[in-house]
Amino acid sequence: MRNLRVDGERLWRSMMTMAEIGATAKGGVCRLTLSDEDKASRDLFIEWCRAIGCTIRVDAMGNIFARRAGRNDDLPPVVIGSHLDSQPTGGKYDGAYGVLAGLEVLRTLDERAIETDRPIEVVSWTNEEGARFSPAMLGSSVYAGVADLAYGQGRTDHDGKSVGEELERIGYRGGDDLAGRPLACYIEPHIEQGPILEAEGKTIGVVTGGQGVAWYDVAVTGADAHAGPTPIAMRRDALLAAAAMLLRIRELAVAEAPAGRSTVGEFRIEPGSRNTIPGKVEFTVDLRHPERETLARMDEGLRALIAQTAGEHGVDAAVERIWLSDPIAFDADVVQAVRAGADLCGYSHREIISGAGHDAFHLSTICPTAMIFVPCKDGVSHNEAESALPGDVEAGCNVLLHAVLERARG
Amino acid sequence: MRNLRVDGERLWRSMMTMAEIGATAKGGVCRLTLSDEDKASRDLFIEWCRAIGCTIRVDAMGNIFARRAGRNDDLPPVVIGSHLDSQPTGGKYDGAYGVLAGLEVLRTLDERAIETDRPIEVVSWTNEEGARFSPAMLGSSVYAGVADLAYGQGRTDHDGKSVGEELERIGYRGGDDLAGRPLACYIEPHIEQGPILEAEGKTIGVVTGGQGVAWYDVAVTGADAHAGPTPIAMRRDALLAAAAMLLRIRELAVAEAPAGRSTVGEFRIEPGSRNTIPGKVEFTVDLRHPERETLARMDEGLRALIAQTAGEHGVDAAVERIWLSDPIAFDADVVQAVRAGADLCGYSHREIISGAGHDAFHLSTICPTAMIFVPCKDGVSHNEAESALPGDVEAGCNVLLHAVLERARG
Repeated sequence: MRNLRVDGERLWRSMMTMAEIGATAKGGVCRLTLSDEDKASRDLFIEWCRAIGCTIRVDAMGNIFARRAGRNDDLPPVVIGSHLDSQPTGGKYDGAYGVLAGLEVLRTLDERAIETDRPIEVVSWTNEEGARFSPAMLGSSVYAGVADLAYGQGRTDHDGKSVGEELERIGYRGGDDLAGRPLACYIEPHIEQGPILEAEGKTIGVVTGGQGVAWYDVAVTGADAHAGPTPIAMRRDALLAAAAMLLRIRELAVAEAPAGRSTVGEFRIEPGSRNTIPGKVEFTVDLRHPERETLARMDEGLRALIAQTAGEHGVDAAVERIWLSDPIAFDADVVQAVRAGADLCGYSHREIISGAGHDAFHLSTICPTAMIFVPCKDGVSHNEAESALPGDVEAGCNVLLHAVLERARG
Repeated sequence: MRNLRVDGERLWRSMMTMAEIGATAKGGVCRLTLSDEDKASRDLFIEWCRAIGCTIRVDAMGNIFARRAGRNDDLPPVVIGSHLDSQPTGGKYDGAYGVLAGLEVLRTLDERAIETDRPIEVVSWTNEEGARFSPAMLGSSVYAGVADLAYGQGRTDHDGKSVGEELERIGYRGGDDLAGRPLACYIEPHIEQGPILEAEGKTIGVVTGGQGVAWYDVAVTGADAHAGPTPIAMRRDALLAAAAMLLRIRELAVAEAPAGRSTVGEFRIEPGSRNTIPGKVEFTVDLRHPERETLARMDEGLRALIAQTAGEHGVDAAVERIWLSDPIAFDADVVQAVRAGADLCGYSHREIISGAGHDAFHLSTICPTAMIFVPCKDGVSHNEAESALPGDVEAGCNVLLHAVLERARG
């Protein structure tokens, strides 16, 4: 078994074939959730799984479970998963890689006629991206009981069409109730969507958890005034105060390096006239850290620096936390299975924290979970330019194969 | 003569009566250039001037010249002026004060039957504000030969109506050619439109000139990236780089205190998503200083700090100067006449530089010129909340009276 490897060329061909569905002119894909392209990708996935003897079940959220029986088929299954939907101008790798790597593991076992004690399932979750229907990771959240079915089916797109109606329309409103049963573990391979592995020349990211995320809205209020007659010392310039806040918000993350993150992504000023001192600024803050205590410390630091900077600049400032997602710690045993798989195959690897959200976060609330990252070019994702190397894609799949084999023992 | 004073209550009543034309619900005025309200204000001004025996002349730009004859009426006139048009949500004082202070000087001379060697004219310039027709200070620019008549009459509003057509419509396309003749001097009283006099408790601003102004567009280009997976040290955050630039741009003005000004009034980022590091920022810079050499030094400083900051943050930056208006130095003798008037009346005063543009800037290119500032509440202008105290309005007019009397000697 130690020398068993997946067929990297077959995996790559499958990914390129899948990427033809919803292909964009710039080399990406557009497969919005429950669109005709999404249906076509689901049909193809199911066709490929049936060709190797898998049974297919679909639940009421349209999550697809392809199952390869185990020697002891009553044991809780090892589950591999990710998603086939994409951003409007998404890439070929985000999501599809995890689903097709799972398929490649099953194909490899099938062609070698290797039996496992436990059954193995490959899942494609509905609406991971959240681009057509909000929120993201919807199918897995209902499966994990984080959200209920009525909520999930009731989410609507900009045209008022609901998930339930659109599932019905494309024929993927399934009748299989698979929630609540025990799962041996869940493993999700994914491109990193960040620059760390590429920069450090590592092939495999052994994902130990997900960052906690806190989102804030900040409003800074000074006073509009004429740019000419108003001396610098008599100004209450909301933009300058906000600029000083931004530099200090960066330091919040630097103080918690290497895992800390702080980002100001939206920033608007008023009145926005060339010769008027801005009287109002609104901006967002995104703070992330994998430890709850540290994220709480960053929260305190943010509030303190905003109050202090506002005072120094003679402006008023209000900060409101509008969302908090606690850090996720993956299961030590499943993480170890991933690490051991990388060691066995001889791939360089490092531990890494997922900065972005994944279906694995919801699954981690109901079963032992881990993820496998592979490098992507320049850390670019959610972009038609998203790219990964065939060798890295193959390597991640080999790690998955061995982690699954290890965890599929009865 | 030393004890001669204007009638402050009459001046105030005239201002309040004028402010009824185009009065807004919030206590301001809306008298857009060449609107029916502008015509009504012109008619009223002319009616008042004729009542004290002035002759009225109107040129082809609609500039109105009300003339009180001098003992030696062939001498070049002393000219007082400002404008009766307003911003869409303007105040009662900006512009109207200068015109009506000029009228009050003539009324005071008239009721005391005081003759002056030189004739005195009060001018109301067309389209100072630039709110309906761009650019601002249009009537005075044509009068001073800075722009030509065809250009001035050809300017159009958002509906495509030209200055020439609208002058014709309201009956103010005059036939008097008054440009090119010698003027003894030009004096313009105005509210400060800034906070300095009020803050320092001074009644009179002896305006020694106007700031030079340089306008820039700056573009900062980094790289978009996902807020979660991208470590702080690996970012090329255009917003953070711009924030650091803003703080240094403030220092440019602080280094040239008290006259230096720097303002960033427009600021836009892309892509503007809560969990995406901004890859692009565009902002404007407005630099001002009353000395050409200093403004040139600030220009060099701006370019250097933008290049340096861009380098430190690993982003690209481009800076382009899109407009430069040289500093204006008013005439030392006319400025001295204003100062002497304030001393004679016993008003506290200080020298001040005009931060905003005024018709006086164009007049200064063709004759000895000065301005008189009076305080306005909180430095607020171009706003319905614009406010000034009756005592200050009266004081500025008394200074004007004595400066005019001094300069009207033959």
